[in-house]
Amino acid sequence: MAQLVGNAIFGQSGGPTSVINASAAGVITEALKTGCINKVYGAAHGIRGILEEKFYDMSMEDPRELELLKTTPSSALGSVRYKLADPDKDPTDYNKLLEVFKKYNIRYFFYNGGNDSMDTCNKVSKFMQKAGYECRVIGVPKTIDNDLYATDHCPGYGSAAKYVATATMEVYHDARVYDTPMVCVLEVMGRNAGWLTAATALAAYKGEGPDLIYLPEIVFDMDKFIADCKKVYEKNNGKLIVAVSEGIRDKDGRYVSEYGSDLAKEKDSFGHAQLGGVGQVLASVLKKELKCKARAIEFSLLQRCAAHCASATDVEEAFTAGQKAVQFAVEGATDCMVAYERTTDANGNYKCNYVLVNLSEVANTEKKIPREWINEDGTGLTQAFIDYALPLIQGDSRPPMEDGLPRFAKLKKVLVKAE
Amino acid sequence: MAQLVGNAIFGQSGGPTSVINASAAGVITEALKTGCINKVYGAAHGIRGILEEKFYDMSMEDPRELELLKTTPSSALGSVRYKLADPDKDPTDYNKLLEVFKKYNIRYFFYNGGNDSMDTCNKVSKFMQKAGYECRVIGVPKTIDNDLYATDHCPGYGSAAKYVATATMEVYHDARVYDTPMVCVLEVMGRNAGWLTAATALAAYKGEGPDLIYLPEIVFDMDKFIADCKKVYEKNNGKLIVAVSEGIRDKDGRYVSEYGSDLAKEKDSFGHAQLGGVGQVLASVLKKELKCKARAIEFSLLQRCAAHCASATDVEEAFTAGQKAVQFAVEGATDCMVAYERTTDANGNYKCNYVLVNLSEVANTEKKIPREWINEDGTGLTQAFIDYALPLIQGDSRPPMEDGLPRFAKLKKVLVKAE
Repeated sequence: MAQLVGNAIFGQSGGPTSVINASAAGVITEALKTGCINKVYGAAHGIRGILEEKFYDMSMEDPRELELLKTTPSSALGSVRYKLADPDKDPTDYNKLLEVFKKYNIRYFFYNGGNDSMDTCNKVSKFMQKAGYECRVIGVPKTIDNDLYATDHCPGYGSAAKYVATATMEVYHDARVYDTPMVCVLEVMGRNAGWLTAATALAAYKGEGPDLIYLPEIVFDMDKFIADCKKVYEKNNGKLIVAVSEGIRDKDGRYVSEYGSDLAKEKDSFGHAQLGGVGQVLASVLKKELKCKARAIEFSLLQRCAAHCASATDVEEAFTAGQKAVQFAVEGATDCMVAYERTTDANGNYKCNYVLVNLSEVANTEKKIPREWINEDGTGLTQAFIDYALPLIQGDSRPPMEDGLPRFAKLKKVLVKAE
Repeated sequence: MAQLVGNAIFGQSGGPTSVINASAAGVITEALKTGCINKVYGAAHGIRGILEEKFYDMSMEDPRELELLKTTPSSALGSVRYKLADPDKDPTDYNKLLEVFKKYNIRYFFYNGGNDSMDTCNKVSKFMQKAGYECRVIGVPKTIDNDLYATDHCPGYGSAAKYVATATMEVYHDARVYDTPMVCVLEVMGRNAGWLTAATALAAYKGEGPDLIYLPEIVFDMDKFIADCKKVYEKNNGKLIVAVSEGIRDKDGRYVSEYGSDLAKEKDSFGHAQLGGVGQVLASVLKKELKCKARAIEFSLLQRCAAHCASATDVEEAFTAGQKAVQFAVEGATDCMVAYERTTDANGNYKCNYVLVNLSEVANTEKKIPREWINEDGTGLTQAFIDYALPLIQGDSRPPMEDGLPRFAKLKKVLVKAE
């Protein structure tokens, strides 16, 4: 495979995670030391930064700050939610991209994100091929949702899972402090796949977790939910912890979070009708049904940016995925995403291999939890899930501390001037 | 002072913190090695456990598990919210306590808690004196609210402050990821004193915190709040982070969280009227006033039980406060609470001394943030607060990890049989 000499651009896309910047550090540091890549550009807010010719010269950054990216949450270059049109219907954006790629001699395109981002990556790759413009396009996966197809797991999931399991264990102890009934509903992110909510099962595995877990993979039935909760509530004399995914739906496909609007109408039974998401909705239902104090706890943004409680395994894998993307591209690969393949080392311990899968395979395919990893009752996870998830949360990663607080990366972000 | 030989009982009371168990470890381990204390009892659910003669023999616990208490959140012995009656009106409980103290020859009473707990401690102490029963009563402070009088700061505050500041910095980065407007309202615990909400100023001090901070010490005015927010929103092109205490009140003394019920009526302007606490209320107001996405984040229980992100300074001081309580009592002190006195070492660095203050001085007096530590505008903290708070969050404490998750103390809790 002939060596391709030119410049590279890297972009971050989709929701933040604790480790997307670790992948950025992997791509950028590897690209900067690769002979055939001259300039390494970082796109401001992903694909939009490329379309608007707003990108940074990464060679201007202090190497120490690039190293700090490994423990800095969110997307340091800025992210974006921008869906490219179907090129056959509207090629405007694609023509602009091609123009920018030519203008800056961009021959390497690395894009870091989830499902939609891999779709973007795929469309750009196919368009450049069709246009006969030689450019190597490699996707780097990322999502706390862990729902990307064709990879064993996703960068970002391990750290989010570690945080969710840890916080759940802490809440478990807090919620048991009084000798009075206490019902907690933990609301976890995950619209269509329950991987992150399932991470609360790791706390349950330690004996310090939720009694019941509700995932989007299982159709939600309010009557069964109430019956399930009553059973546990009576058995544990008033102690009940429920973990629920924001994305649970009923048999009609309606999000349970939408029930809030109905419940709000029943002013009397719900006091001030101060309802939030699905956690608030279910806490209100339990308050009424069990006639007890019920508290909803939403992990909210904390679960996807808690770099102070990240998985060292996740951070290291995310960084390596970034490095591999560059190495694979330089070796000639294109139109692919870096994927994780689970294997075992000589001692039978967990090991992660880095392989390539076609972008068209990954784009827009969601991976859900296999039914056999969910218990028959649909309210918990089996040992198979625990065995799957445990290796991903091993090792502690946290930012270096300054004044007792995390020291996150500070980038100069020197904008590239058009030549 | 004559040596007093007998048994000791220790109880935990009030809301959990990350370090109340560290104080427990201090009291218990110190008491177990003190010659004049024979048995060391741990009360189940504080004062109620004593009234019901439900307490544990702490000498039966594995020393390693007692050590683990230093990094285990919540109250391992169980807590309680139980207000003793005025002994002159109703001496029932006090007579029962005296009976139990005599029956088990309890000569040392250590009680760990906040304002109400120190009131309990004070009442018990005075009653025992009046009854002529020799018993040394020492209170050990604890509260994330940091509102105890006569102590520089409270065990539990440093860790909660460190968590709140850290999580706020992480949210700051997450909330800036897109190039679209983003308004976040962070709701922090603290009903009457704003110490914990003020901890978000530590994140602001790092340049990664809230733009505006609203404390219970300052009367809340909705019109000014909206004007403040609009100004920042326009200046920062759509980026705004507000930190607010759950306890803010308007000029009529009404909790802003109660506005939810009114707002819920304005269905149209608030869509599904899914409102929660004060954070949700203010996010809804900003959504309407700024016509943008506004998200409320409630730190909820996480802020008081995040042992995985505790301050090593706080943990060490809490443990030492427990040890000192026993040492002072053995030396003859009674009717007092252990307090922190801030001083500096030979090199001018922060140092904490442990002193005694009379229980009657502490009981039910709340310490609020001095007005001069709050900026003129009432929307932020001055350097004086930063200088006060920074030393309290230094050093990282976290539980030992097992399988990538915290290993918290597991007590046997061997109930004491009446002789």
